[in-house]
Amino acid sequence: MNKRNKQGTQSLPLEPVAGNGLLDRRALLGRGIVFAGAMSSGVGTALTGAAAEPLEVGPWSLGPGVPVPPYGQPSKFEQKVVRTLTNPKLEPRGSAARTPHHLLNGTITPNGLHFVIARGGQTEIDPDKHRLVIHGLVKQPMVYTLDALHRYPMVSRISFVECGGNSAPVYSKEPIQADVQALHGLCSCAEWTGVKLSTLLEETGVDPKAKWFIAEGADLPTMNRSIPLAKAMDDAMIALYQNGERINPSNGYPMRLLLPGYEGNMNVKWLRRIKLVEAPVMAINETKQYTILRPDGKAWQFFFPQEVKSFITHPSPGLNMKAPGYYEISGLAYSGNGPIGKVEVSADGGKSWAPAALQAPVLSKAFTRFRMPWNWDGGPATLQSRATDEAGNVQPTRAAFLAERGEPKATPPVIAFTMEHFNAIASWGVDGKGEVRHVYA
Amino acid sequence: MNKRNKQGTQSLPLEPVAGNGLLDRRALLGRGIVFAGAMSSGVGTALTGAAAEPLEVGPWSLGPGVPVPPYGQPSKFEQKVVRTLTNPKLEPRGSAARTPHHLLNGTITPNGLHFVIARGGQTEIDPDKHRLVIHGLVKQPMVYTLDALHRYPMVSRISFVECGGNSAPVYSKEPIQADVQALHGLCSCAEWTGVKLSTLLEETGVDPKAKWFIAEGADLPTMNRSIPLAKAMDDAMIALYQNGERINPSNGYPMRLLLPGYEGNMNVKWLRRIKLVEAPVMAINETKQYTILRPDGKAWQFFFPQEVKSFITHPSPGLNMKAPGYYEISGLAYSGNGPIGKVEVSADGGKSWAPAALQAPVLSKAFTRFRMPWNWDGGPATLQSRATDEAGNVQPTRAAFLAERGEPKATPPVIAFTMEHFNAIASWGVDGKGEVRHVYA
Repeated sequence: MNKRNKQGTQSLPLEPVAGNGLLDRRALLGRGIVFAGAMSSGVGTALTGAAAEPLEVGPWSLGPGVPVPPYGQPSKFEQKVVRTLTNPKLEPRGSAARTPHHLLNGTITPNGLHFVIARGGQTEIDPDKHRLVIHGLVKQPMVYTLDALHRYPMVSRISFVECGGNSAPVYSKEPIQADVQALHGLCSCAEWTGVKLSTLLEETGVDPKAKWFIAEGADLPTMNRSIPLAKAMDDAMIALYQNGERINPSNGYPMRLLLPGYEGNMNVKWLRRIKLVEAPVMAINETKQYTILRPDGKAWQFFFPQEVKSFITHPSPGLNMKAPGYYEISGLAYSGNGPIGKVEVSADGGKSWAPAALQAPVLSKAFTRFRMPWNWDGGPATLQSRATDEAGNVQPTRAAFLAERGEPKATPPVIAFTMEHFNAIASWGVDGKGEVRHVYA
Repeated sequence: MNKRNKQGTQSLPLEPVAGNGLLDRRALLGRGIVFAGAMSSGVGTALTGAAAEPLEVGPWSLGPGVPVPPYGQPSKFEQKVVRTLTNPKLEPRGSAARTPHHLLNGTITPNGLHFVIARGGQTEIDPDKHRLVIHGLVKQPMVYTLDALHRYPMVSRISFVECGGNSAPVYSKEPIQADVQALHGLCSCAEWTGVKLSTLLEETGVDPKAKWFIAEGADLPTMNRSIPLAKAMDDAMIALYQNGERINPSNGYPMRLLLPGYEGNMNVKWLRRIKLVEAPVMAINETKQYTILRPDGKAWQFFFPQEVKSFITHPSPGLNMKAPGYYEISGLAYSGNGPIGKVEVSADGGKSWAPAALQAPVLSKAFTRFRMPWNWDGGPATLQSRATDEAGNVQPTRAAFLAERGEPKATPPVIAFTMEHFNAIASWGVDGKGEVRHVYA
């Protein structure tokens, strides 16, 4: 009864803008360019004759549903859309939980799927007993209850947080065959609301000798990091809300430090102390961990902003393509230095590039969703994205990154952190069957 | 050991900008105005002497936490932050679930707390069996699987959805003593991602005779509404994702119609049919329900955009104030006609007004969070907010609204829908003890 449309690539009204089938992004922007041609090679099913009323009536249309719950949960058909866990039984080591970006779309990460790195597990704090103290080189040390913080002026901002070790698997000697969640899942983006740290420091006053502050968490390992005072005076926030509701326990309930654009671990969760000091405390997380060993044997320390990065979420490894024709290439771009300026996409492994459409609003230090129309001809393709931030920083090629940081010596498991701040271009190879694999190109 | 700061209103460096303690909003914007004065009358606790290291060590700092779960949930200490339900046992009638705006902050509503109106309960659909058909006055009827829709160009937008009956309790003859959740909880805001309806109509083609379309859901009551075709060609979306993840079952999984700014019920959930037609279908939801009876006995029908509205969430009924001093007045504003232009706040029942700070980004047809610094002197106050959208529409006073729509005749229970599209200014009265009540002013 129903008749599948022809599959193929004939009669596209849109001129390619780069090699291997990339189409003009204006097609996405609703500027009157007719999609009919691209779509006739596409994916819906035309109805004819008796099939013009084809809807089967599912059981859900024949009886009542279930009660609306007080707190909604995703559909039972979405049970695969969860974080992957490295330590589900909480053995005495760190825990990582990765965001399934290949199964999401848009830019907001729902709270249940926000990535987590935790050294003592998910810390569960009684908010009525929790306190934040600000002391050290201040004129008047202060302590704040959660109720007290709620009386101060608040701000909201949509901001990404990214682990310094995110994307480390892409540094390996051989391309690890894993999905976007495994390769890039240690970053997420949410609307955070709270009190600017600078607002509280106006109250405590600041001793002119203070140049840094130490942020300390109330978790078992007492996570602590040294942060330049300039960040406190800029956009640092004592965050109390995540996507409208109170912060999720694994992300720091009842309060965390948010340092927009800075390395994830510095955004101290379960925050209980801000101490102003003259010099960094040289905590384990800034001496042993989160430093970057260079090929010459020296190390970079205090490497704060997450550099400009992008990756393609659709298509991507594990999301195979079923037939030639129209697809949307889509992904995420962000920079710890400000807003994304542009994202370019290549379908031929970097030989030619075309600018992708950026979904508005393009916000500073937040995820930006990019979209690129693509007509896949059924042949091999190598998909790449390259982000440039407004400050002019360009995401490096893999070759350029390795030239600076050194060649990888091994292919460790996905969960190993063999490189920090890896932001080189990643490549997805598409073969003639539509299978998508992680490749180096 | 600890010493509470003095409570009071002395020595504020900020000049009032309107009556009864409203302060200059520039204070919120980080433009270098010192808050110390306001805060010294405030809320934190100063530490002196031995108290300079006052942090007690909670049990959560002395042992490991719990495993990070695959899908995170709010803290067990936030169990009161849930939707209120009118039909928790799913008796054979409609169900409403209201968003607890007085316990949230920012502008995004988390998916678990998005408001719901459902006539057949939460409909649970197998996405692999669900189809969307577009037919009627089109050149080529089409049917789409969920997989097929994922190959089309997508868009994301942050958009509010509001029930036409939201705020109806505020229309009552006597001010109902209830919280913001009860009075204004039938609106929410999320990032929605999906395929523009216009993209699919480019594929089907449109018969020139088509002027409307009928959207139909797959729920038991087969919710249907007639919508002008112009909206389909503008910003209507077949939404597949809500805040990054697939739509929550109570909000239309696996797909819903999103008509940014239009009355909630028109945003048909569990969408299965789009039929292009010459004239509206005259469904029960546009003849019996969702019409507005005027005082002269005639009715408004097809009343689509939600008018400009705002309400104060903090302070608000049930969130009583403990002591005089600095507070932030904060709330939500939105308009179905475009972006919010300004929000003014009054602390003296509308005698004087001052402009609130609007949290960026201010997006069209989305929640905008407004914030206003306030120094409460401990005396009576009447708090109001008045929104104006960029098109120049101004939220009416209660008196102006009643003059147009007629006087309320009764004070029904909160869950009754005695008025549609009620958008008049609401008033919170603060007494000398800090108790906040719903008042008419």
